Amino acid sequence: MLSSNPSSIAVEIRLPYLLFTGGETSDSNAKTAFGLRDWRPEACVGQWRLPGGTVDLGLPTLTPAQAQSLGVQSLLIGVAPVGGAIDPSWVKALIQALDAGLDIVSGMHTRLRSIPELVAAAQRSGRRMIDVRHASQTPPIGNGIKRSGKRLLTVGTDCALGKKYTALALTRAMQRAGIKATFRATGQTGIMISGAGIAVDAVVSDFVAGAAEALSPANTPDHWDVIEGQGSLFHPSYAGVSLGLLHGSQPDVIVLCHHPRRQAIDGHPAFAMPSLREAIDVHLLLGRRTNAAIRCVGIALNTKGYAAHEREALFARMQDELALPAFDPMESDLSPVLRRLTDAIG
Amino acid sequence: MLSSNPSSIAVEIRLPYLLFTGGETSDSNAKTAFGLRDWRPEACVGQWRLPGGTVDLGLPTLTPAQAQSLGVQSLLIGVAPVGGAIDPSWVKALIQALDAGLDIVSGMHTRLRSIPELVAAAQRSGRRMIDVRHASQTPPIGNGIKRSGKRLLTVGTDCALGKKYTALALTRAMQRAGIKATFRATGQTGIMISGAGIAVDAVVSDFVAGAAEALSPANTPDHWDVIEGQGSLFHPSYAGVSLGLLHGSQPDVIVLCHHPRRQAIDGHPAFAMPSLREAIDVHLLLGRRTNAAIRCVGIALNTKGYAAHEREALFARMQDELALPAFDPMESDLSPVLRRLTDAIG
Repeated sequence: MLSSNPSSIAVEIRLPYLLFTGGETSDSNAKTAFGLRDWRPEACVGQWRLPGGTVDLGLPTLTPAQAQSLGVQSLLIGVAPVGGAIDPSWVKALIQALDAGLDIVSGMHTRLRSIPELVAAAQRSGRRMIDVRHASQTPPIGNGIKRSGKRLLTVGTDCALGKKYTALALTRAMQRAGIKATFRATGQTGIMISGAGIAVDAVVSDFVAGAAEALSPANTPDHWDVIEGQGSLFHPSYAGVSLGLLHGSQPDVIVLCHHPRRQAIDGHPAFAMPSLREAIDVHLLLGRRTNAAIRCVGIALNTKGYAAHEREALFARMQDELALPAFDPMESDLSPVLRRLTDAIG
Repeated sequence: MLSSNPSSIAVEIRLPYLLFTGGETSDSNAKTAFGLRDWRPEACVGQWRLPGGTVDLGLPTLTPAQAQSLGVQSLLIGVAPVGGAIDPSWVKALIQALDAGLDIVSGMHTRLRSIPELVAAAQRSGRRMIDVRHASQTPPIGNGIKRSGKRLLTVGTDCALGKKYTALALTRAMQRAGIKATFRATGQTGIMISGAGIAVDAVVSDFVAGAAEALSPANTPDHWDVIEGQGSLFHPSYAGVSLGLLHGSQPDVIVLCHHPRRQAIDGHPAFAMPSLREAIDVHLLLGRRTNAAIRCVGIALNTKGYAAHEREALFARMQDELALPAFDPMESDLSPVLRRLTDAIG
């Protein structure tokens, strides 16, 4: 029914990477770099930052020339400041990387090739500049028509609290359990990890639901697309992206991702976090518009820094309150969630 | 607080217009042309359509050369098919218009200057091609911070049922009543009518709320921005646009627009229209995220084709059910709605 095959939008990236974090001092803004390190460790040879930068990925610090001599093919911009613009202070470093013989891979809104000095350096060195956010063609307008196959979407009470990791961990667990499952990337880090996808936050707003439809096309009835969520319905900047993705994904199930110690929307102290009950209800209310059978099957909690007994107490309390399995995708056995998928939906 | 002044994004269009509707057979897809005719009649000298086209605006049919001899400055593309692409069958006609000495004004997603034959014709004739959707700069990311001044947003149970006309009619009525009010255009027709605005459905999805914030900047406490709504929270293709606009506009009041005889979402027969109660509740639920005091002050009904007694019976029933004034912005006295604005909000 839908002809768009997301694999036709695949980016071709030469591995392995040198991870660049510029002068960034916030680990939260460096989630791209951490994501690559955690999910493609074999592809991450080293890290490089500018004076003043404090992000430490625990990898060897290498200059572009050192990295090149160790076989690195691409410098990957691993930070995503608010607004997605290329920081002017990076340009000299990026030219140094091109001159050292590395490609540059970027997930920023600003296109690498909009910067004349970079274009000149790339021409000089014969290396490539890859704008992951801009690799996709214009998607179709959403049509809302029900597609075969099953879909899981990770959603969140906020940005940057584990929607991508939860989707990756669930995909891995489903595949290990013999369930047909494909991770569908919707952001630059996910695309860099999986090698394909659509950066939905970079799509023109009219086309977001259509992009989500194209990303998870009709499939066999027993196949699961595990779709990486973006933004949050409760975020004052990005809720529209989240709603378009929810409608176009027409998920059979959602997993709600949450950070139990976060008091307010990240970077927006005037916006309190929603309660989990409220977050589930709003997602189901709106999601029903394109899939009347939508259900929430679990709560994914980021419990980094929790002691084991604290974590277990938290899970028990959530399960009690919400009658849903609560888990940390990086720590927990995911089989209770998988059972809910297979038991309830078939 | 917000530095973006929407007037800096004003397009400069040379008037008057020849309205072009191509081979279109659906009046609904020609709402741009009808909008111009209704709201800037003095700027609409004639109409021109291709063989097979059936849209009749009630204006004299003129060729581009005839129109030019009558003083017309610009051919305006007055249709907006699904997807917003320039139909290949139009290209020859657009070249004819350029060669006759007219500018071309387009609100399509496809840029006029992406078509080499048009670029060549424009160079030959020395006339301009204006892509209204692409005239704006990149807006800022939304910040959710409360702005001074008051805001009214028109919202809808569906697309294409009167959100723009309602906003225009309310602005006119408010100005006549001595209330400081500015119409804020969010779509190509509104921009063509008012001469400024941001086509939010053409903005990259991450920036929709920010675009809405920039469009209705901080103002004096007694000033109303009357913001043209886009799409619908209930539309399977465009709900994300509507939610970003709702959040960024942080409206004090909404007016819900509805077509009482429409049974399903336009072009999506599998999607039933929401009830008015449901539509109000969902808008207030989501709108509260950026303005806790959001209220609905009226129901704008498109009653074209109703007899006077049918219309009055409909209004009475709605007012009874919803305890809100119901009106047709093209037919009714709008003072009951204005009273709700001034009484309740000050």
